[in-house]
Amino acid sequence: MTEEPSKRVIIMVIGLNELIKAALAEDIGPADVTTDATVPHDLMGEAWIGTKQEMVLAGISVAERVFKIVDPTIVFERFAMDGEQVPANRRIAAVRGSVRALLIAERVALNLLQRMSGIATLTRQYVEAVAGTGAKIVDTRKTTPGLRALEKYAVTAGGADNHRFGLFDGVLIKDNHIAAAGGIRAAIDGVRISAHHLMKIEVEASNLSEVEEALQAGADVIMLDNMPVEAMMQAVAMAKGMALTEASGNVTLANVREVAATGVDLISVGALTHSAPAADISMKLRVGTPV
Amino acid sequence: MTEEPSKRVIIMVIGLNELIKAALAEDIGPADVTTDATVPHDLMGEAWIGTKQEMVLAGISVAERVFKIVDPTIVFERFAMDGEQVPANRRIAAVRGSVRALLIAERVALNLLQRMSGIATLTRQYVEAVAGTGAKIVDTRKTTPGLRALEKYAVTAGGADNHRFGLFDGVLIKDNHIAAAGGIRAAIDGVRISAHHLMKIEVEASNLSEVEEALQAGADVIMLDNMPVEAMMQAVAMAKGMALTEASGNVTLANVREVAATGVDLISVGALTHSAPAADISMKLRVGTPV
Amino acid sequence: MTEEPSKRVIIMVIGLNELIKAALAEDIGPADVTTDATVPHDLMGEAWIGTKQEMVLAGISVAERVFKIVDPTIVFERFAMDGEQVPANRRIAAVRGSVRALLIAERVALNLLQRMSGIATLTRQYVEAVAGTGAKIVDTRKTTPGLRALEKYAVTAGGADNHRFGLFDGVLIKDNHIAAAGGIRAAIDGVRISAHHLMKIEVEASNLSEVEEALQAGADVIMLDNMPVEAMMQAVAMAKGMALTEASGNVTLANVREVAATGVDLISVGALTHSAPAADISMKLRVGTPV
Amino acid sequence: MTEEPSKRVIIMVIGLNELIKAALAEDIGPADVTTDATVPHDLMGEAWIGTKQEMVLAGISVAERVFKIVDPTIVFERFAMDGEQVPANRRIAAVRGSVRALLIAERVALNLLQRMSGIATLTRQYVEAVAGTGAKIVDTRKTTPGLRALEKYAVTAGGADNHRFGLFDGVLIKDNHIAAAGGIRAAIDGVRISAHHLMKIEVEASNLSEVEEALQAGADVIMLDNMPVEAMMQAVAMAKGMALTEASGNVTLANVREVAATGVDLISVGALTHSAPAADISMKLRVGTPV
Amino acid sequence: MTEEPSKRVIIMVIGLNELIKAALAEDIGPADVTTDATVPHDLMGEAWIGTKQEMVLAGISVAERVFKIVDPTIVFERFAMDGEQVPANRRIAAVRGSVRALLIAERVALNLLQRMSGIATLTRQYVEAVAGTGAKIVDTRKTTPGLRALEKYAVTAGGADNHRFGLFDGVLIKDNHIAAAGGIRAAIDGVRISAHHLMKIEVEASNLSEVEEALQAGADVIMLDNMPVEAMMQAVAMAKGMALTEASGNVTLANVREVAATGVDLISVGALTHSAPAADISMKLRVGTPV
Amino acid sequence: MTEEPSKRVIIMVIGLNELIKAALAEDIGPADVTTDATVPHDLMGEAWIGTKQEMVLAGISVAERVFKIVDPTIVFERFAMDGEQVPANRRIAAVRGSVRALLIAERVALNLLQRMSGIATLTRQYVEAVAGTGAKIVDTRKTTPGLRALEKYAVTAGGADNHRFGLFDGVLIKDNHIAAAGGIRAAIDGVRISAHHLMKIEVEASNLSEVEEALQAGADVIMLDNMPVEAMMQAVAMAKGMALTEASGNVTLANVREVAATGVDLISVGALTHSAPAADISMKLRVGTPV
Repeated sequence: MTEEPSKRVIIMVIGLNELIKAALAEDIGPADVTTDATVPHDLMGEAWIGTKQEMVLAGISVAERVFKIVDPTIVFERFAMDGEQVPANRRIAAVRGSVRALLIAERVALNLLQRMSGIATLTRQYVEAVAGTGAKIVDTRKTTPGLRALEKYAVTAGGADNHRFGLFDGVLIKDNHIAAAGGIRAAIDGVRISAHHLMKIEVEASNLSEVEEALQAGADVIMLDNMPVEAMMQAVAMAKGMALTEASGNVTLANVREVAATGVDLISVGALTHSAPAADISMKLRVGTPV
Repeated sequence: MTEEPSKRVIIMVIGLNELIKAALAEDIGPADVTTDATVPHDLMGEAWIGTKQEMVLAGISVAERVFKIVDPTIVFERFAMDGEQVPANRRIAAVRGSVRALLIAERVALNLLQRMSGIATLTRQYVEAVAGTGAKIVDTRKTTPGLRALEKYAVTAGGADNHRFGLFDGVLIKDNHIAAAGGIRAAIDGVRISAHHLMKIEVEASNLSEVEEALQAGADVIMLDNMPVEAMMQAVAMAKGMALTEASGNVTLANVREVAATGVDLISVGALTHSAPAADISMKLRVGTPV
Repeated sequence: MTEEPSKRVIIMVIGLNELIKAALAEDIGPADVTTDATVPHDLMGEAWIGTKQEMVLAGISVAERVFKIVDPTIVFERFAMDGEQVPANRRIAAVRGSVRALLIAERVALNLLQRMSGIATLTRQYVEAVAGTGAKIVDTRKTTPGLRALEKYAVTAGGADNHRFGLFDGVLIKDNHIAAAGGIRAAIDGVRISAHHLMKIEVEASNLSEVEEALQAGADVIMLDNMPVEAMMQAVAMAKGMALTEASGNVTLANVREVAATGVDLISVGALTHSAPAADISMKLRVGTPV
Repeated sequence: MTEEPSKRVIIMVIGLNELIKAALAEDIGPADVTTDATVPHDLMGEAWIGTKQEMVLAGISVAERVFKIVDPTIVFERFAMDGEQVPANRRIAAVRGSVRALLIAERVALNLLQRMSGIATLTRQYVEAVAGTGAKIVDTRKTTPGLRALEKYAVTAGGADNHRFGLFDGVLIKDNHIAAAGGIRAAIDGVRISAHHLMKIEVEASNLSEVEEALQAGADVIMLDNMPVEAMMQAVAMAKGMALTEASGNVTLANVREVAATGVDLISVGALTHSAPAADISMKLRVGTPV
Repeated sequence: MTEEPSKRVIIMVIGLNELIKAALAEDIGPADVTTDATVPHDLMGEAWIGTKQEMVLAGISVAERVFKIVDPTIVFERFAMDGEQVPANRRIAAVRGSVRALLIAERVALNLLQRMSGIATLTRQYVEAVAGTGAKIVDTRKTTPGLRALEKYAVTAGGADNHRFGLFDGVLIKDNHIAAAGGIRAAIDGVRISAHHLMKIEVEASNLSEVEEALQAGADVIMLDNMPVEAMMQAVAMAKGMALTEASGNVTLANVREVAATGVDLISVGALTHSAPAADISMKLRVGTPV
Repeated sequence: MTEEPSKRVIIMVIGLNELIKAALAEDIGPADVTTDATVPHDLMGEAWIGTKQEMVLAGISVAERVFKIVDPTIVFERFAMDGEQVPANRRIAAVRGSVRALLIAERVALNLLQRMSGIATLTRQYVEAVAGTGAKIVDTRKTTPGLRALEKYAVTAGGADNHRFGLFDGVLIKDNHIAAAGGIRAAIDGVRISAHHLMKIEVEASNLSEVEEALQAGADVIMLDNMPVEAMMQAVAMAKGMALTEASGNVTLANVREVAATGVDLISVGALTHSAPAADISMKLRVGTPV
């Protein structure tokens, strides 16, 4: 059993500390006036972070880092790991140290943990809804500005796969690119000349004739944009052995299995990151004695 | 008729540009490989941003600024204003300029606009649910790290009020502060000595004896934490004329009116910012001719 | 006996390191050419930081952090604490470590310590001048750009209280706001609608009729702006039990006790932070032997 | 007649905007709650910045830039220039534009202008005190962290000269460097090998035998550290034609002319930057009508 | 004819300004002491940037932006465009404006222009050396820290192609990855699970059996690492129709055509960016009269 | 034997970490997709950094810091020191730790080490070419934007000297300054008034009459700009005892000894930093077992 989702781990050596420091500055400003006034600076305590609903956990390392940035002497002990399905009312971590530090770090740590676990929890529902079909659930670029790496990591903790990270690490030719380039073939040819040789080419198609055209032009992946299920099935048949297919648009928990049943390889779901409700997590603190 | 929510406008002279630049860098990285390969650099076009569901709009100025940061020569024309209830399938803005710039700015602009409008839309539902009672809906510190100013602004666009911005601009004495200080009175006295003279004092109470104690100690506001409706009613009666009351915890659209009916002055709802689904907004682009 | 001023401690988790690094970069630039040329890199030594005048100390932790940022292996031992009245020619700290590091950190550490102790020392004079009256000395926003948190902390080390930190954590309606809003009542009503419920409202008044108007409109605090002493006394009488009063404008060490004798609750003094002469502190170093 | 001090102008192409933005963020935080609540966003007005005491002006361009950063459409008209002696109660600038912007920029603009003019004013007193002697007044590195460029500029506006900017642009061998290097000659030789060929060498001496030793070793400048006036005279005689001399330590307005009379070339005064009281400057605003 | 290399344009909306400002700060520090002392602030002039050797130009827009950042009123007129072969002693741009600004911007503008043109010039030599073969010259990650986007752009100006930008936008499985994963197939399978679906997979092989193994495992591209020419020819034959081949290691201008003749699709050359001598470019200025 | 070049050590307390973090972010972006997919997160290993050509080493501490920033638990052992002449195929360091961290840090560490060692190696050739003459080799401001401190340090590791760091720490009056000031004397007089008293004055001269004029005006150093060897000899004779002389322009390894033989004190060579080919250094890794 490993500590992180088995399939992939996004390494964020550099930027995470800056993100957390900015979040703390946003919340604390010049001072936590309540804590400064009421909590002796040498008071120690212990807190437990626990679930208030069933969820798939994501972000436990991020929460730990928030506490450590506020006070490196804080001890953080985990009882669950990212990707784990945790029942309601279960302790997922214990945190021990200065009460001032615990209180100051609490909100930022929980805000990140709740958002990430919310995404993982919703993602898991989609993943389970398509279980047994060959389809993979993937995310989109519809993420929160500034939090994309964390949110895409949470998607993997939920058991789904990532689509490209941004505009720079994958080619996705949409209708507007096609219009600008003067056709599907022209667009693909442009990418062949311009993008580096390790990039596959995905092309958006909204009907079967566009699917046909994209296949003829050598697309590696066809995005089936808002297509009816029957058309998707035909597109999958056409693309079989030539290109992967990705269903996109208006996918919900209610219809995702039907979409998967068309045989598409990938189903992208913007809601994973833009509309997942926060998972309900809270922190309980027991004040000790000054040290 | 003014262009912004009537009650308040958060001025963010300094930080918004930095937030948008960071979001663009996150999405674009070193280059938009698809657009570079398919769109001539001198191609001009026009795009329309439109709703795909009914919503309360928030963030139209923010979206405009995203486009202007990518290319200051872009022309952005608004057809709706923040705080306005907009039906589905309505154009809310037209954007004209370089197609490359339009495509590169699109996702970040929409990500911000959808999140903010999602918050405003959910907020409006809560506000309408308590219409006619004296209760005000307020937000919490359960916001997305880095986006608090935008999210709290969206709450006001939805018609609700803001609670304190962070730990620095309002005193809220919670159970842990009380435990650390050695009681409600000790905590309030500590704040009286330490916080500046323009700060009111809010105290969390979870039962009526704590309400009584907080009132005796001179609290300006009592937060009624997860109290049953009947207890809340009693608390409101006790506090009448002495302190404001704020209901907090487990408030949903289903029960908010019942909570409001207790006579509380304020009802804080974390879901406004942590669990609002994104409002569905899209951009359609018509490619013109090179200039 | 605690290590920090008894009443309040401003916590600056995030920004202080950045401030110190920027100050070091400003002073050191690409290299300390003199030290590089004359001091062996393995030479160890011991330095003593000492007073050259009587003073109230402030910033000893900040000075320590400067040395630790330059070289984490430096040992810093304190002999006095912030808020302490220290006579002239007294050692307040010993610093041991690499001579290069000691010399490179010296100026920035002393510049901060001298400014902060200068503020604490001047503040203490004001505080003592009003001893026994009920008046509190408070600071203003007339601080050095970039150093407000440190300077306001130094004010508390001197024994006075802080006014609001900035424009965001307290409401202060001045003559221009009143003119813009169309009168005192309109301005206060505007704030009631717009500011959050934990903010008290202070209103500037320059004569007794404005005091009356502000009281009628429900101001929590009245700032008596440049009023004659007699008028202040009348204002205090009018406000008694209804609002706090703050004397502001042209307060000097010579007249502060007379102002306090009017019965005002608060006296704000810009000079605490904008005109305090630096306290005279120096560092003596004894070079040891290479290690 | 030029707009800036005749002798030198420090060009700060890059950093000044960042400094001002940070100062504004420090003061405004998430929002100016009073102005937002009381001033219509379309209200225009005019303000005058004026002196409340006689002073030497410094920083008028810096103040202008603060207003322009808050709102580029503000019009700023100057009536006086840096380095100019301005009597009390004189308007030095008019500022026209959005009342919100004027109020938000006011404090930061004045804080910088008052500090810089305070330094220029004190500096001018020292310069006039030594008028007619050959001695130049120079500043030191005892400046406010983060503001060194502005403060050293203010010194030149006051009519004095700058010493080296930091540790990187001039060699100053102090007692500790001498002890570390094993003597004055060894220290100077070390610098000859290590520093680049455009650097002169200044050596601190606290008695005449050290002066002699520094001259023998070829120092370009001798800093006479806390020497009695008689010894300084002898040192000046010894150094004549061989090295410049700089008086340093315990120089006040009361004794600076006596020091200058010793014939020293330079007199460095830390108080210029670390203990100059702020010049009293205020802004008066007249609210216009919404536009 | 367009103004930029025909095949690709790297868009750097966000980061280039920051890079240039940092470079200017590095060079100017607190002030250009020579220019401040000798050049009147209102003196205008005209400068010509010209070649002192034959070269392929790259970076003319970057140079322009340096001047514009120092002074937005500077007029910059181009006489040549990126990617153009320019003979020696030819003017490539005229720059008109404040002499101070021209002198302050000169070095940073030239340093960037010379480096980028040096890269383009060397690249063109490699491109021409393989002209007529099917091989493409590509760059590597052996770029100058901080300048990768500019250097990779310069490579395209020279007529070659880019390899992946960094570790994030392309999969390249090297010997260490293979050892860590436990074999070529295991490594490729790991990537198939973990990397998103738009990434092709390149595998390093140092002999023909590794080439065979990589082909069997389905690699999209085989990097032939330091292979003899004969082995490369065999590898090309083996991979034909199954995978692209890339020659890597010890490629020089002397042997690159021989390498290309093996039939490889791509030849990567680290020297393009890590060892290109600067192209010789200078600026001549004619001082005008004060305006 | 010391660990650093004997003559000088540039201390870079503040900026180096930021530079390295930026370089890592540039290379890694959101994730190293190959390493994440193929290397178990708990796999440990050992790597050796070794030379592939003879070189003068520079930057070994910088390389160490790259690894430590990626993972502070990495152990870095040096086998050679900066300034040391190292033969080909020699191990210069061993690095032990997490294989993921080793692979992620490798390229940035090598890119810096290769560039710095390339500069040191080329510099050493120039230094040896003038051995026995009195001439010193010095660098210029023709450095890579952002890397000046590292490149100038590498020059000293190669055994040469630094010229001024930037525009701020040395006066160099060039032809344009002379034209702007209205002559050599006017320019020097301007500097005397404006620059601080620790700055020497260097003046560019392109013929003997300018040399004469600069000497008459009291220049400390004369830069002989692109002068023929014979003229340089005359200039050296003229300047003897009055000023140092610096040869500048068109100096190559082929002609540097002839230039040195003219008796000039300094020879500045831009190629040291702008055209040094990277030294060939590689890292070999042996994968261990998961820990």
